[in-house]
Amino acid sequence: MRLAVIPGDGIGPEVVAEGLKVLGEVAPDVEATHYDLGAARWRRTGELLPDTVLDELRGHDAILLGAVGDPGVPAGILERGLLLKLRFELDHHVNLRPAKLYDGVESPLAAPGTIDMLCVREGTEGPYTGNGGVLRRDTPHEVATEVSVNTAFGVERVARYAFERAVARPRKHLTLIHKTNVLTHAGSLWSRTVEEVAAEFPEVTVAYQHVDAASMFFVTDPSRYDVIVTDNLFGDIVTDVAAAVTGGIGLAASGNIDASGTHPSMFEPVHGSAPDIAGQGIADPTATVLSVGLLLDHLGRTEQARKVNAAVAFDLSTRDTAQPLRTAEVGDRLAALAGG
Amino acid sequence: MRLAVIPGDGIGPEVVAEGLKVLGEVAPDVEATHYDLGAARWRRTGELLPDTVLDELRGHDAILLGAVGDPGVPAGILERGLLLKLRFELDHHVNLRPAKLYDGVESPLAAPGTIDMLCVREGTEGPYTGNGGVLRRDTPHEVATEVSVNTAFGVERVARYAFERAVARPRKHLTLIHKTNVLTHAGSLWSRTVEEVAAEFPEVTVAYQHVDAASMFFVTDPSRYDVIVTDNLFGDIVTDVAAAVTGGIGLAASGNIDASGTHPSMFEPVHGSAPDIAGQGIADPTATVLSVGLLLDHLGRTEQARKVNAAVAFDLSTRDTAQPLRTAEVGDRLAALAGG
Ligand SMILES: CC(C)[C@H](C(=O)O)[C@@H](O)C(=O)O
Ligand SMILES: CC(C)[C@H](C(=O)O)[C@@H](O)C(=O)O
Repeated sequence: MRLAVIPGDGIGPEVVAEGLKVLGEVAPDVEATHYDLGAARWRRTGELLPDTVLDELRGHDAILLGAVGDPGVPAGILERGLLLKLRFELDHHVNLRPAKLYDGVESPLAAPGTIDMLCVREGTEGPYTGNGGVLRRDTPHEVATEVSVNTAFGVERVARYAFERAVARPRKHLTLIHKTNVLTHAGSLWSRTVEEVAAEFPEVTVAYQHVDAASMFFVTDPSRYDVIVTDNLFGDIVTDVAAAVTGGIGLAASGNIDASGTHPSMFEPVHGSAPDIAGQGIADPTATVLSVGLLLDHLGRTEQARKVNAAVAFDLSTRDTAQPLRTAEVGDRLAALAGG
Repeated sequence: MRLAVIPGDGIGPEVVAEGLKVLGEVAPDVEATHYDLGAARWRRTGELLPDTVLDELRGHDAILLGAVGDPGVPAGILERGLLLKLRFELDHHVNLRPAKLYDGVESPLAAPGTIDMLCVREGTEGPYTGNGGVLRRDTPHEVATEVSVNTAFGVERVARYAFERAVARPRKHLTLIHKTNVLTHAGSLWSRTVEEVAAEFPEVTVAYQHVDAASMFFVTDPSRYDVIVTDNLFGDIVTDVAAAVTGGIGLAASGNIDASGTHPSMFEPVHGSAPDIAGQGIADPTATVLSVGLLLDHLGRTEQARKVNAAVAFDLSTRDTAQPLRTAEVGDRLAALAGG
């Protein structure tokens, strides 16, 4: 496996080191190449994602990313120039985000019940395209627009991916989340497309919810969800609510997937670079290890993925939350469990 | 007080009746005129909001709305043709949504702490303008767009309203919620505008959060919020999360306000017409009564508003949740408390 690794900034390198430790334990054939990208490089050289680096990344089977960013970088620079550029250039149209409440993990909900959802967020369209602009900047007549672009091609492929995941799960249930009553143009395209694809998956039951109602149900009744399919921006928001009710961003893993297999997919924890705790060796690498699990699963290494996920599940169910382990200790424990 | 009343569909008329009962108790000078608008009228006549009705509504001091809609009406018809049309025609640029965890109300959170926030959602811009369209409908090449429109004029006035509310509250704290790292055009306008208005309110401390992070904090740490100012769509979503953690949509009140006073403002519970329980006399009218409180407060009837809110707070702290009262019983109790 040729793996490109982008450790990034802040706690990124710390959690990635543990992710690689666990990965090495179950997949001895990993050839990892590290790439220096992120806030630090941008400050040093002004570079975000040079074309040569992008070309090299394309030659890998997958990418593992830690986190990029530091508080001094203006909003949008790293996001548009690096993170989103990777997603768009590598056609990561499926942004995959499981949210599972593991045994032993405390939810902020008083009665969380069983939570085990898989959010399939579209990754290359919607309000994330950068379309829009500004007129009469810095005057009282300024107008700023953001254009959400949605195509039949783009919606159909992510809907199909979501149905394929749903049909392979025990509950075979899929919920479309949108705001069809207000965003009527895009909403109609999403509704019609999901309905069409649904016809090919008669075993899957389909529900629809407006994003506002869904965000409420994620808190009051998260057990009702199985697979979710939604637009890029709605997915950004609801997956953070899902992460919150399943124990927080320290456990939230994600995959940025080109389901066609043309480009390498990229796996990363949902959390950021957390500069406030960087360098102290106390960041929790679990979300990165779960992202490694998604990576292995995506590459068809089902048994290796199973080992990684089982290690995390066992570790979480036996963790002493009063005595948090250090980053490397968690990694050691997960590596031993996954390898043993 | 000349009050226009739009009871609407489903439980709308039931909860509005109780709202008027309580209102009558504290404000004996109410002259209420009922308007028949909503799903039922649309089915019967095809009319949503005739110009003559809109003109009549303009002649009132305020509007009280129950809820509109029934499951058979296609998505968008009543929203675009009635609810949003009212907001746009009457320039309801402030969508005011308090979220307070009352004593005696159970939150789904295990340790909610003190929650008392006031969300100021923009009401006439953003992705709600209806801008956008569709190309090559029903073909594999369909493209659907939604355009979020944001103006200096629109953002400045809602930011100013939010700061005015913040400075009048004990904590004097304001949080801007947006997604400036991705929606860079609109995000920049929002950030710069809030910064400019903030200069006029040096007593108010200001924070910023991305909408995804905020949606998580609404669940993990809602106590940190005081006043929130945000865009129309983000406000739609986060206020439902706020409602969820403060005991649900049965208690969520809202005001659609023209802060200039040119047009009548409109007050409504956030919940919908709930056709599943309509006609049974079991809907909880509390959100409507709290909306009446917002209405009185908006009209400068501070003492009357205080009586209504105090009645609700007392009632909630002494409710027997095992023995829910019927709609009219809750109204009777609140009317007696507010009047006595
Ligand atoms: C950093 C940002 C561009 C990104 C997003 O909005 O997608 C992040 O919030 C995420 O969810 O991965
Ligand atoms: C019904 C719908 C148009 C409305 C909105 O999106 O604003 C509702 O969700 C609300 O929050 O009042």
